[in-house]
Order: sequence, then C-alpha cells, then structure tokens
Amino acid sequence: MGEPLFDLVITNGICVTAADVARYDVAIKDEKIVLLAASGSLAGVSTKQIIDAEGGYVTPGGVDCHVHLEEPALFGRGTSSDTFETGTRSAVAGGCTTIVAFAPQPKDQPSLLRALELAHEKAHDNCFCDYGFHLLVGNPGEQALSEFAALTEKEGVTSLKIYMTYTALQLRDGEILSVLAEARRHRIFTMIHAENGDVLNWLTDQLESKKLFAPKYHSHSRPPTLEAEATNRAIALSSLISNTPILLVHVSDPGATRRIREAQSNGQPIYAETCPQYLFLTRDDLDKPGFEGAKCVCAPPPRDRASQEVIWTGLRNGTFSVLSSDHCPFNYDDAEHGKKTPIDDDHPVGRFREIPNGIPGIETRLPLVFSSGKLPLTKFVEVTSTNPAKLYGLYPRKGSLIPGVSDADLVVWYPDSDLPNVTLTNSMLHHATDYTPYEGRRVRNWPRYTILRGRVVWDRETGGVVGGKGYGQFLKRGHSTLDGMWEAVEEEGEFDITRL
Amino acid sequence: MGEPLFDLVITNGICVTAADVARYDVAIKDEKIVLLAASGSLAGVSTKQIIDAEGGYVTPGGVDCHVHLEEPALFGRGTSSDTFETGTRSAVAGGCTTIVAFAPQPKDQPSLLRALELAHEKAHDNCFCDYGFHLLVGNPGEQALSEFAALTEKEGVTSLKIYMTYTALQLRDGEILSVLAEARRHRIFTMIHAENGDVLNWLTDQLESKKLFAPKYHSHSRPPTLEAEATNRAIALSSLISNTPILLVHVSDPGATRRIREAQSNGQPIYAETCPQYLFLTRDDLDKPGFEGAKCVCAPPPRDRASQEVIWTGLRNGTFSVLSSDHCPFNYDDAEHGKKTPIDDDHPVGRFREIPNGIPGIETRLPLVFSSGKLPLTKFVEVTSTNPAKLYGLYPRKGSLIPGVSDADLVVWYPDSDLPNVTLTNSMLHHATDYTPYEGRRVRNWPRYTILRGRVVWDRETGGVVGGKGYGQFLKRGHSTLDGMWEAVEEEGEFDITRL
Amino acid sequence: MGEPLFDLVITNGICVTAADVARYDVAIKDEKIVLLAASGSLAGVSTKQIIDAEGGYVTPGGVDCHVHLEEPALFGRGTSSDTFETGTRSAVAGGCTTIVAFAPQPKDQPSLLRALELAHEKAHDNCFCDYGFHLLVGNPGEQALSEFAALTEKEGVTSLKIYMTYTALQLRDGEILSVLAEARRHRIFTMIHAENGDVLNWLTDQLESKKLFAPKYHSHSRPPTLEAEATNRAIALSSLISNTPILLVHVSDPGATRRIREAQSNGQPIYAETCPQYLFLTRDDLDKPGFEGAKCVCAPPPRDRASQEVIWTGLRNGTFSVLSSDHCPFNYDDAEHGKKTPIDDDHPVGRFREIPNGIPGIETRLPLVFSSGKLPLTKFVEVTSTNPAKLYGLYPRKGSLIPGVSDADLVVWYPDSDLPNVTLTNSMLHHATDYTPYEGRRVRNWPRYTILRGRVVWDRETGGVVGGKGYGQFLKRGHSTLDGMWEAVEEEGEFDITRL
Amino acid sequence: MGEPLFDLVITNGICVTAADVARYDVAIKDEKIVLLAASGSLAGVSTKQIIDAEGGYVTPGGVDCHVHLEEPALFGRGTSSDTFETGTRSAVAGGCTTIVAFAPQPKDQPSLLRALELAHEKAHDNCFCDYGFHLLVGNPGEQALSEFAALTEKEGVTSLKIYMTYTALQLRDGEILSVLAEARRHRIFTMIHAENGDVLNWLTDQLESKKLFAPKYHSHSRPPTLEAEATNRAIALSSLISNTPILLVHVSDPGATRRIREAQSNGQPIYAETCPQYLFLTRDDLDKPGFEGAKCVCAPPPRDRASQEVIWTGLRNGTFSVLSSDHCPFNYDDAEHGKKTPIDDDHPVGRFREIPNGIPGIETRLPLVFSSGKLPLTKFVEVTSTNPAKLYGLYPRKGSLIPGVSDADLVVWYPDSDLPNVTLTNSMLHHATDYTPYEGRRVRNWPRYTILRGRVVWDRETGGVVGGKGYGQFLKRGHSTLDGMWEAVEEEGEFDITRL
Repeated sequence: MGEPLFDLVITNGICVTAADVARYDVAIKDEKIVLLAASGSLAGVSTKQIIDAEGGYVTPGGVDCHVHLEEPALFGRGTSSDTFETGTRSAVAGGCTTIVAFAPQPKDQPSLLRALELAHEKAHDNCFCDYGFHLLVGNPGEQALSEFAALTEKEGVTSLKIYMTYTALQLRDGEILSVLAEARRHRIFTMIHAENGDVLNWLTDQLESKKLFAPKYHSHSRPPTLEAEATNRAIALSSLISNTPILLVHVSDPGATRRIREAQSNGQPIYAETCPQYLFLTRDDLDKPGFEGAKCVCAPPPRDRASQEVIWTGLRNGTFSVLSSDHCPFNYDDAEHGKKTPIDDDHPVGRFREIPNGIPGIETRLPLVFSSGKLPLTKFVEVTSTNPAKLYGLYPRKGSLIPGVSDADLVVWYPDSDLPNVTLTNSMLHHATDYTPYEGRRVRNWPRYTILRGRVVWDRETGGVVGGKGYGQFLKRGHSTLDGMWEAVEEEGEFDITRL
Repeated sequence: MGEPLFDLVITNGICVTAADVARYDVAIKDEKIVLLAASGSLAGVSTKQIIDAEGGYVTPGGVDCHVHLEEPALFGRGTSSDTFETGTRSAVAGGCTTIVAFAPQPKDQPSLLRALELAHEKAHDNCFCDYGFHLLVGNPGEQALSEFAALTEKEGVTSLKIYMTYTALQLRDGEILSVLAEARRHRIFTMIHAENGDVLNWLTDQLESKKLFAPKYHSHSRPPTLEAEATNRAIALSSLISNTPILLVHVSDPGATRRIREAQSNGQPIYAETCPQYLFLTRDDLDKPGFEGAKCVCAPPPRDRASQEVIWTGLRNGTFSVLSSDHCPFNYDDAEHGKKTPIDDDHPVGRFREIPNGIPGIETRLPLVFSSGKLPLTKFVEVTSTNPAKLYGLYPRKGSLIPGVSDADLVVWYPDSDLPNVTLTNSMLHHATDYTPYEGRRVRNWPRYTILRGRVVWDRETGGVVGGKGYGQFLKRGHSTLDGMWEAVEEEGEFDITRL
Repeated sequence: MGEPLFDLVITNGICVTAADVARYDVAIKDEKIVLLAASGSLAGVSTKQIIDAEGGYVTPGGVDCHVHLEEPALFGRGTSSDTFETGTRSAVAGGCTTIVAFAPQPKDQPSLLRALELAHEKAHDNCFCDYGFHLLVGNPGEQALSEFAALTEKEGVTSLKIYMTYTALQLRDGEILSVLAEARRHRIFTMIHAENGDVLNWLTDQLESKKLFAPKYHSHSRPPTLEAEATNRAIALSSLISNTPILLVHVSDPGATRRIREAQSNGQPIYAETCPQYLFLTRDDLDKPGFEGAKCVCAPPPRDRASQEVIWTGLRNGTFSVLSSDHCPFNYDDAEHGKKTPIDDDHPVGRFREIPNGIPGIETRLPLVFSSGKLPLTKFVEVTSTNPAKLYGLYPRKGSLIPGVSDADLVVWYPDSDLPNVTLTNSMLHHATDYTPYEGRRVRNWPRYTILRGRVVWDRETGGVVGGKGYGQFLKRGHSTLDGMWEAVEEEGEFDITRL
Repeated sequence: MGEPLFDLVITNGICVTAADVARYDVAIKDEKIVLLAASGSLAGVSTKQIIDAEGGYVTPGGVDCHVHLEEPALFGRGTSSDTFETGTRSAVAGGCTTIVAFAPQPKDQPSLLRALELAHEKAHDNCFCDYGFHLLVGNPGEQALSEFAALTEKEGVTSLKIYMTYTALQLRDGEILSVLAEARRHRIFTMIHAENGDVLNWLTDQLESKKLFAPKYHSHSRPPTLEAEATNRAIALSSLISNTPILLVHVSDPGATRRIREAQSNGQPIYAETCPQYLFLTRDDLDKPGFEGAKCVCAPPPRDRASQEVIWTGLRNGTFSVLSSDHCPFNYDDAEHGKKTPIDDDHPVGRFREIPNGIPGIETRLPLVFSSGKLPLTKFVEVTSTNPAKLYGLYPRKGSLIPGVSDADLVVWYPDSDLPNVTLTNSMLHHATDYTPYEGRRVRNWPRYTILRGRVVWDRETGGVVGGKGYGQFLKRGHSTLDGMWEAVEEEGEFDITRL
C-alpha cells in the first residue's frame, strides 16, 4: 500500500465554471486540481481525504480584487478596522480564496515601490487566503511613473487604481492621462474611481451651510450625475490614449452604466465592476433613525430600487465584468475613536462628511449573490471568480477548475436538499468590524467548505476557520488576459498623439 | 491484461472551452469524455487509441444550427445541392460534429409533424454527424399550432424558424404573434429571418423595370434598411408577447445590430446570430464579372467592410450569441438546371431575382473563423459550439468537455509549430456543390482530426472522411438553457394581454 | 368725405406671430391685412369697423389640417356626425378660419379625381371657413398614381394621407413605396397614420376571445409599441425613397416621438403632428363607468400622464411641427344608430372593436392649448396656424399677418384683465355631435372674435356664429414651403434605386 | 406742407423675419419702425428719404453677441487688434447693427462692476453700432457673486461667460456651480466655453516634448473629444442646479452636438451657438505652408467636412439657437509684436501654443451665411438676429420688424437680378486686423445698406461706412425671453439641494 493517489477528492458535487454546470468529481494533489472525472467515479479512489458534496454545488474559490485592508482613512476618524489577518479570515469564511488589496501611495510619498514594500510588511505571514496588490496611485510624479517597469517585471503588480475624487487622492485630468499613457506602455491595467470630486466638495459645503449633516445627506452630496459625469470623462480620457483599457470600479448608477455600455458597443476596452451594496442596499438605508444610516455610507452611495435592477441587468448582459466587495470597513463605534464621526450638540446625528466612506463585505459577497437567484450560476462564477482572475493576471492558476493548472481553490455549497437558510448577523462574521450593513437579512445558502490550495480552510460544519494564518501566499501576477486585452493593444501599437 | 481503460486519449493538447484555455489531457470511453487530467499525465495510460496533439488546440466539436439540406428551393431553379449525406460529410471535414437542420413546412402542408417525418426520412441512416431538426413554419394554422406540444414533448424539437420575407414562406405580423404566443407556452425557441418581404418585392420589381438584372442588383434589392426595419419589428412583436425570446438569424447590418443591442441593454431576451459571409465577403463580391457574382448571392447580402467590423465587434462584446454557417447551397451550374438562373439574350448575366438565395459554408465555417485571429479562442468556442448547444437544448451533451457528461466530440487542430496554411479550393471540400465563395482564400489552420462520440471521423493526415455514413444520430433536444432563458419566462408567467 | 380707408381696424391688441409677440394695430381692407402700425396709431383712422382688443392677444386664424367631415365610417355604426356645414361652423366658433379636410378614396374607387369631386360636392356653398382637401388614398393603383399630376397642377391638392392600419384602407409596405415615389415626383406631401394594422387585428381578436369587450380594451388593442413600430417603419420607407418628406400624424407615444426626433437629428425630412387628445386625455378616460369610456375612443388611444409630458416637450423643442384636431366625430347615441356600438346581453358595455374611432375637437383645439400655459405664445401660433399653412401650401396667404399678402384671418382673445374662464360643456359647442370628451373641463380663455378675410364670423359677445354658411372658400394650394422642403429635394434629384 | 410723415421708407423689398418672407414696405420715424404696409403702397408717401430695394431682401439688422474687442490676450503676444471703434465699424459694414461684447474680469480683479466700468470706458462714444456687455467671469469670489444683483438691476447686464479652459480664466467645476446657482437666482444667462483645459495643457506639453510646434498641431492639442467631454460636463453641472439654462458657445464637434441635442430632447434648457468658422473652415486650413495656418487658429479649432455638415444640420433642426462670429482678432504680423508668435531657429514656423486663439469675423458673418444657400431665410434671420436678441434680453427692440416697437435696424441686400458676387479680400474689410481667414472666397451677396435706428450707416453704393462713430448706444438689457426661459424656471422654483 503506497501513498494515496490524491490528497483530496470531492465527489458527488455539481461543478460550476464560467461556462459549465455539471456533475463530476474533482481530485486534488499537491495543492492543484489534477483530475476531473465522471461523477461518482472517484468515490472509492485512494485519497487522504474525501468530501461528499451530496449534490451541492462546487465553485472555484472566490476572487475578490477590490479590498481595502489596514489602510489609513482618507478622512474622518480611525483606520480601516480590518487587518490583513482579520480581513482574510473573513474572506475564507465567505468562500473567498484570493484577494487583491491596495498598496496606497499617499501624495507625500513619491515612490510606489516603497508603498508596495509597506503593504508587504503588513500582509506577510498574516493572511488566511492568497493575496496580491494593486498600487493605489496618489502621486503620479516622475519617480512613480519610472517605477512602472519594476512593478510589472519584478514585483508582479500589474494593476493600479486612481481617484477622480477625495481631496487626498484626487488626480486632475492631466495627471490621469500621464498615468494612462505610462500604464499602456507597461501593460498595467487601470482602475478608476469615477466621481467628480470638485462637485462633491461643493455640494457638501452647500449641505453643511444649510445644516444638513445627517448620514442620509451623504447621498445628496453624491447624486448619480456625479458618477455618470466622471464615468464619461474617464472614458474620454481612455479614448485619448488610443483606447487604453480601464475599469470603472463600483458602478452604481444607470446613467454611468449606459455610458459604459455605449463605449463597449463601439468596441472600446471599457470594463466595469459593481458591488453587492448596489444590488442589496438603497439610499433609504442611509435614512435609518439617528446615526444608524452611517452603517451604509459608502461611495458611491446606494441608489434606488430601479437602479438595482439596471445593475442586475448589466451583470446579466455582460456590461459588468466583475463583482467585487469593495470591502472597506470602519468600526461604527470603537474604543479609540467613538462613533464614526464626532457626535455633539451641533451635530446630534453626526456629520456625514466626516464618516469614513466604506463598508465591510468581503465575507457576505458570495453568499448574498449566490443566494439571490438573479444570476445564472455560470455568470455568478464568471463575475466573482473567473473574470477577476483573468482581469488581474491570476488566471489560469486562479478562477477555474483546470486539471494540472488551477490551484485547488474551491467552495462547496450546501445541497438544495439541506439548505442552511442563514440569517445574517454580525456575530457570525469573522471580520474585526462591529457591524454588517446586511444585519437581519436572510440568505439561502452559505459556503459549507472553503478549500485553498487543497486544504480545507473553512468548515462550517465544525463551525470555523480551520486554515492557518499565514497559509495565504503572495501572488505575483501577470498581465491581464481578459478578452485578449493587451494583444489587441499590441496590434494597434503605442499611443500616438499625432493621430488625435 | 484486461481491456484498456480508455477507448481514446488525447494528450499534449491545449484544450479550449467557452471559459478556459489550458493544457490538459482528455480521456474517452464509450463515446463520452470520462476524464480530464493534467497535461501529459495520461501519456502512458492503457487505451485503445491515443492522439498526440503535439501542442495543438483541442476544441469541442462544432455545433452548426443553421443548415439547409435537401430542401426545395423557394424560388429559382433546382434544389439544395447537398443531401444529408453530402452535407454532413462536409460538416465533419470542417470540424463540425452536430448540426440542426430544417424540416420545412410548405404553406400547403398544414401539419408540422408530417413535415418533420419527411425530414427524418431524408436524414435517417445518411448522416456523418449527429443531427436534429428545427421546424420551419410556413403555415401556422390551427393544426400546426396544436402540434407544438407533441413536437417538444415527443419529438425533441424545441425550436422553429419563421420568415418575414420570401413570398412562399412570409408570415404576416399577426401570424408571427400567433407563433410566438404558442411558442412561449411550450418553451419553443423562435428564430426569425428579418427582412421586409413587401419592400424587397417592390424594389425587385423596380430594378427589373429598369432592366437591372445582374447579380449585383441582388444587393440593391435588399438594402440594410430592410433588415434593420424588420429587426426592429421582430423585437416589437416579441415585446408584445411578454418579451418572448427570439433569435435574429444571419444578421449583417450595423443598424440591425444596434437595435438588437439596444434591446439587450434593456434586458430583453433578444438573441442574434451571424455567419461567416458577413465577416469575410462584401457586396463587391456580388459585382464580379459576368455571372460570377451569383456565387455570393445570399440573403441578406454581404455588406461593406465597415459593416464587417461592426459584426466582429458584436461577436466580441456578446451581441451575437452564435455564429452559424447558414449552409444553403445550390450548384452554380448543374447538369439538370444549367446555370443558377436562365441566361438568355434578354438577361446575358442572368436575373438576380431567380438566383436561389444561399451559399455553401458548413465546412469552411470553423477554419475561417479560427484562423482569423479576430476572436479570443474562448469566444470562438462559445459562439460556434457551446452557445449553439445551450441555445438549442443540446447542452451539456454537446458543446463542452465535461467528464462523464459530454459526448466525446472534439476537434484537434494543427499546432502553431506545424501549421498547414491551407488555400481554399472547392476541390478540397466535401460537399456536393460546385463552388465555394471563398475560392483562393488562405486560412492558417484546419481541423487535423474530428472526433464524434469517441470515433475519429475526419483525419486530415490520411486525407479523408473516415467516419461512416449513418454513424450520425438523431438528437432529441431539450429546452434552451442559455442564460436560464425559460426560467426567467416562468417567473414572469404567461403572456397576458391585459398588461399591454 | 370719401370711402373709409379701411374696412376694419384692430387696435390695442397684442399681436402674436410665429416669431413675435408685440403690441401693434392691424388694418384690413378688401379681405386682406394691409397695414401694421404702432399700437394705438390707428385708433382714430377712417374705417368701416373698429375692434378694440383692450390689451387682448390677437393671433392669426387657426389652420386645422386634420379634419374628417362627412366621411363614411371605416367600421362600426353610422357616419361622421359633422357635415361640412356643422364642422366649419364649429371651427370658426373655436377660432379656426381654415381647414383642410379629407377626400376619401375607398378601395373600390380607382380614381382620386372622382373622390375629390365628391368631396367638392359636399363642401361647396356649405362652409363657414375656408377649406381645402387632402386625398385619402385607399387604392394606389395605376389610375390613382397617374392622377397625381392633375391633382397638384389643376386641382391645388398637394398632400395625401395613407394608412398603415384599418383593413378598409391599410396599404402594404410596397404600396406605400409606390405612393411615396410618385408623391416625390409631383412634390406631394404624404401624411401617414402609423399603427401596425396586422398586430392590432390580432390583439383585438385575442381580447375578444377572452370576452374583453369594454371600451377600455381599445387601449390594450393598440399599445404604444404598435405606434412606435409603424413609425419606425414609415421612416424606413421614406429613407428608401431618397428621404422623401412625410408627416407622422397624431403621434401619441414617447417611443414614436424618440424615433422621429432621431430621424430629425440626422437631418431626415420627417415631420410630426400631435393633437389635443394626447395632451389632455389619458387612457384612464377610456375606463369610465359603463359605455362612457367610448367617448374618448380615438386612434391611437390617449396614453398616460408621462406620455403627455413627452408630447409637450416635443412641441416645445420642435419635434412636432403641427398640432391639429383630428376632428373625427361620431355621435355617442343617435336616433338612427343608437349607441356607438350595439349594446346587448353579450356586450353590456358594447364592443370596443365596433366603436368608430374618433372624437370631436375642431372647436376646442385652440382654447385648450392657448389656455394651457404650456407653450410660449409664438410656439402656439407656429404649431396651430403658421406651420400648418406652410406645410400644406397655404402660406403666406394663411398663417401669418403680412400686410398686403395675408388674408385678414384673425382671432381676438379676451384680455388677461377680463378672462371669461369657460367651463366646457357640449351645449356651448357648435358641432352636430352629442358630446365632447372635455366635458366639464375649464379653460382660461376663448376666442372673443374670429375674423375671416376681414369679416367677423364669430362674435362671442353677441353669442354666436355671425358669418354666413358658404362664405368659406375652397383653397387651391401650392407645394409645401416649410423648411424649404422641396427645394432640398430638388437639389438631391429624383429617387434613384441604384444608390440603395 | 408740413413735415414729412416718415424719416425713411423702404419700398419694394422682400422682408424677412424669423417667421415670414414676404414683400411689403417699411416706414421709419424717430429711429423706430412705425408702419408695415402692402408692397408698393408707400412708394409715394411723404418721407425724408426713400430706399427702393428693387426686389432685394430686407432683413433685421444682425445681432452678434459673441464679440471680443480691446481685450487683453489670454496668452501669446499682443492685444486684440480691434478696438470698439474698428470692430463696430467692421460690424456695420457687414450688416450687423448690435453687438454684445465682453467685459473681462481677470483673476486678480475681484469686482465685476469694476470690470464693467473699464469696458464702458473703452466703448463709450466710440461705437458705430449699438452695444451691450456680458461679464466674462474669471474670479467668481464672494465679491463678484454679490454684484450679480446690481449687474442685472442697475447695469442691464444679464448674461455672463465662463471658461472650462485657458489657465488664466479656467474655473473648476465647483466654481462653475457657484456661478450657476447665483446666476439662476438673478436670472442671469450663462455662456460656457466647453473644452477641457487640463487635458489641453497635457496634450500641448506632449506635442511640444515631441517638437511638434507648427500651427496645425493646435488641432491635435484640442481633439473633438475635449469638447464633447466638457460639453457633457457642463450639461451635468446645469442639471445639478435644477436645470439652470446655459449656452454652449462656438460648438464645433458632432459629439458635442449630439450630447446637446440629447439634453434638448429631454426638455433640458440647454442652448447652443455655432460660428462661421465651423461651417466654412476645416482643420486643413491650419496646415497651410509655413506659418500661414496660424491665421485660422481659433478654439475650438475648425474640424473636418463631415463635422461641417453636422453643424449645418444642427442649425436647420434647431439644435443651435444662435450663430455668432466669435470675432476675436489678433494681427498676424504687427509692428509692435511681429508675427503672432515668436519665430526663431528652434521654431521656424512658430509655436502653436503661443498663437493667440481667435480670428476676425464680425463683418463676414452675415454675408457668408446668407450667401451659402444652406439655410432657409427665416432660419438665417432667426439665428443671426431674432434669437440672439431674445436670448440676451434685447428683444423686441432688436431682432425683428415690429411697428412701434422695433428699432429701425435693417439690412437691405442686393436683388437676385443684380448680385454683387463679391470676392473676399482683407482690403475690403473695415476691421483693424491684417488678414481674413476667408481671403479669396466668393460670396453671392453683401449688405447694400445697413440702417441703424433709421439712419443709413453703411452704403455700399457709395463705398463706405457713413454712420458716425459714437452713434452706437449702450443697451441696457432685460432678462432672456427665448422660449420663455425664466418663466419655466420660476415655476419650478429655486435650486433645492435636497432634491438631488
């Protein structure tokens, strides 16, 4: 009797990829998927461990590429409530096996490599899931631009994010063009937060001058027009740099969605992301009594029901390539800072302008969407795992179930015959944040097991996160492969200003 | 030494599905794919037969759901030049392992079941590849409508096609509504040929009254506006029947494409197909000297280069779900009928109105598109195999590579290191038609092997079709599963006229 | 003391044209406006008659070019309730001094000239206002098309109307093209009733098969999609005949409006008309208790409030060139026929399909719109008088206030200081119809005097129509001059099929 | 024998207003039009002066509301080459009787009233035509905003202009919102120069870094996308302030045009202006040999032929309300500054970035457009005289021919029987600029007489400007009356941030 053939076999599951939904068995060895076989055919095979999925769905591990951990707040009080440890612990408990988090470059830090170094220090040996970094570029000066080559070639960092809002980070249109031109040269993929910062600041001043401080006015300070306008501008800027690929992050507004789709209809390489908060929350959630609305303050703010339907339609028809969490948590009330903003006699329900923007969501992303019944399962896997992996250069190691190629990152869900029907409460979550905006909401299903590189890291049956802190590895990423993105760019050649 | 574990193993290939491109091995037993394994891991396994793909791509067998065989011509001279035998022989030589052909109901035949019976008689025991039937509904009277239940439940015929043009088949808008309402009830998927027949007839009369008879005037008789108008009308008719799913077949025009995409943007279940003739031919091909242009007469006619680019963009961005051949061949010149139309003193280059509409293309579809480099390979598989299989209820048996589930239908292509670089000539093709509209065109690659249910049926190395006539089976089809099509319809419930 | 200088002087009015609103005096002689002078400067001039407008508005007489009088009903019971006598009497009491009515050609009458002759017989010596005719072409056969030259050159009939609906009149798309091609040749302007008749018939059959007979189902039988579809088709047909000018009559639907504006944005000569029923009624008016809803049955049916706003916007931004009444009255209940449709045990509130389509409105058109406050006054005059006159070849004789050129056709309104604030009731109207759909509605103003060719024909002060029956003259019309319509066509030259 | 009845009579002309084209006579007394009468009827009347128009057209004097005179250049060398004296002299020679020029507020001048005072000083007693001022707001600080009330109520200045480009004047989006909010409160109409200044600066830097200095690169530095983007942004900003009316000035780009029309289709109060340079010049004019292209440098730059057609279509279909000159002249080569930019060894054809943006055009505007035959004459008068007068609060005193109301400002053109057929050369023009960009172009007609408040100020027969310097008066303006602009705003009420 030699060594077992496999480390782990999953039998009797219905496997889902971005293309297929079908019953077959999966065998794992040395952290990789090594074999896919007819359903039940591996039931008696020699293996160290076997999981009977009992007819439940088996999906590739979630890939969440919009995650903020241990970042300084841009304004308001406190820092991100989740560290790399607590954030990635929360991730695996929600079926997510890979994240790409941000390495933020503040305006006063000229070097991106230094910013990356600091992010590495925070994450190293602390993660429960695999991880990579995007640069968050706050200062695209000469030094920063000169480091793009090193970032992609040595560091495996092939994407960056820029902001059209937030005084601390906002780039002017000329700076954005500098970033895009250099990004194109090095095949770096650019994510853009598209809201008009100047307008937002003006509206906030106006609201405050009228003593409208409550959390719900956060929504008035960021009307849909702000997002649609900036989205249009971002697309225009991309088109000026020979149609350099960009991603509009966390899209919430039908007008922005329409503009994005129009560009895609014309064949422009414009990509878009949305998040659960634009599918499950509305602006009414900001208007809860007292300061409670602060729990749903994120940017852009949740919109209305009609907008939710537009976003669902956009997921189904391919307008949105990825669905991320934008996990960006701050405690509602903590020992050090008290409530999210100062509450005093002048501001009995706080000041919305000082509420840090962002909500937790890394753990709830997959269960909420999987349970919704609003997406075909192949589409669910595509936008939460396969496409993020392709978009950010992690594919085919991540995001699919390819024998001999893909890491054995998997989620086993409960079978329809034995659904857990969970009611969300913050106490069941594994982040270090003191609330969830989805408190009290019911979901039909939840990851029963999360498997990372062949190891079970979340076993809901036994009640917990069973993988180890530090098991998560840093991922050097390649260039984006979604839609053959850079091949198209190479054919067209470099940005040539004389063609304008 | 027992029986070999497998019937056939394909090793060393780069397998492509609608989601993935990766190296892995495929094992086949009893006509099914049974195992996918790490690349090279099956090299020494016990098997009756092994194919070394040598680094070439391996794709699911092509699924071509727009094929006319042994149909009477609607007008002009002669019948379809290909029988089920010659058509399917041509199919496998071009990598196509499944077709869905038409069972035509003429206006004077009230019964669809009878039309289906006739089609079965022609196909039975004659096919080299698997096959199914769509009904082509020419007379949607009471009897025909009453047979929809039997068609889906007993006969496995879950789709039909109707015409907005051709006097012999054209339905009026009211008739189309009758078909759509009944189709919705039985979850039958409706394909629509959208060109305005009344306008076409009027324009043809005008052209003839001016003695403009040459093949190129075929294009003048069917300007893009005709197609865009009818497309808009078809979408309107679908919307009136509670948004019943429809497919616009062989879309060629940017205006029609725009209208389709607009509907998709609004979340309507409007699907679209295009064909190689709208990617590789132009209206200039109709203007070849003498009667030569007749070789490219199809409907709609090929458009211009700019339109081709719009169609490619539509394939890439998901506007088109499927790419079919619309194989509808007539001999250019045959013993029985002579030239495609009478050529006489009054009409020295023939009369375009009498040229049967349609061209051959079942064998060239995959090589042309695969070689073009204009589609990512996953998209190529999606639109030529996976989506057609899903759309027409053949999935997951056809259209993918799922162990234990999918038929072992595969195409093995030449590796990049040893490309055949073929120049197309009609003599190399396997249909019974005396020309190809792509004569002289070069393609980079060609199917090296075509495998149908585990059997090699085309082996280019040995120069021929090696599968047997009659090996092809009739496929009873289920309802469409693309995008969860009918689930969405069931949620919404039946067509309710009071909601209009 | 010689003869007075003028026949009539209007002093102290605020005169409105399509361009200007300003105080000035108007002098009239021999049926013409002969002088415009500074306000008050004609107060003491020698004149047979003087009217002090007391600061009220003075507008050009209304021109209503969509009027059905003494026509046979297309279906249902009875004939038009208004004769040329009663219809034109009603017109002048509502400020309308010119109408263009229809000379209907039934399908069994090959000659348009004969149809015109019959219309002349009915109108001659009977009219209170000036009048012209459009041909209503039901049978565009060879004879009819051959008469186009005589119609324009001898008869002064330069416009025609065709139908895409109503079995008795509906033309197929090929027939429409024949009409458009011939109309272009003779510079005849074509009006199109754009609703899809085949669909309408199918929906009506469906509704009846479900025993949905009540008037409100008229609306369900003609959903907005029917109008938008046919509008798109009509525009496509125009574009095929080298962009021949057409008018979409009585537009009610936002989708149709959008399509029209899109064509206008592209520079196509697509014109549109709307009517008061789409500004002041909604589909809820069809749902009044019992058979009362029948009073608002017209085609297309009134839509919803949101649609009304879209139509108002379309008037303001120039999408609609004219606002007509589509006066097409049938008695609700008359001695000869009883109710508008048979009411019996099976159909206690009648059958909508048998209710003649059409409502009265010639007298209420101007007061309703003038009083609405929703249009700038110049726009009011433009769409109710000047543009109709230009569009139908009556300008500058009609539709403006040009000295020495324009007929002295005027309306004097009550000044703001002395508004009549009328409540509409049928008893105050002058038609021969037994109801108004606007019963009980309040309007701010009403024509105080209507003047036709210098003669007061309506004097509300003295309570009545004071002009004589037969004073109205037949108007031979020239070609349309709106937007230099035919000049543009002449530059482009004739319809050339080889350019398609 | 008393005093003659009239000061001036124009007989035998074809008078054109925004609504009408017809033969009638015009009588003038005390600077006003006092009588319009049947053509020829005033031939023998007692008058000080009579002009026989001989069948030529008579139009209201041109109103040009986009004129830069005696302004400092924003960059580059020199000042505006025309003073109020030379600019208005040029105006009357081209048929223009009223201008509205700019009173520029530089960033270092906090007071608008002071800026206005300086403009008055320059203009006073120097003008050949009537004139008013717009404020050009460079610094919308507290003081400036507080002066809006005084500007409208005391100074008769009811419009302002702001810039989204030019470092010296560019406002950030928040500043634009401050201006719009305050402008709405005081019913001030806002003109916006919409090009993205940040992008323009970045592109210019890029071009210079590649040593691309020639005038033609001016066009590359301002691609159409810049204008379309800023136009979209300006419309978004207007919508945020409760749809406050704005005018996009000098629109040149089809994309911007489409966006404007879309807003108008939705009923938003978005207005647009275009200029002759976008109808008669193209980017090829910038590419003349050597430095010659500098003569056509304006902003935005002229585009291509296809864009010209889009702009013509936009004039005809009402997208553009006004057609102004944007007269902004700088000498090509003058004693003080030499060429428009330094020409040296490094820059043998100059540096486009230093060429002052702007061209002369006040004199050629009307002849070019009138002669083009591309606009109906009513439309010509509407966009060059009536609409500007209405838009800028000068109507009905200016912009029409209303007896007792309108100033006697008129242009008499040559009759078709005696056309002058002028070839444009700079020597025939009356500005103080050393070139015209239209050198050598032929125009069919030219103003024969220009009449300002009853006085002939330009008599081409006698070869010159015969009116006096200083005869032109300052015009206190009221609020805009176009489309009842502010009435609509008043109904809606003030900007309310809580409605966002």
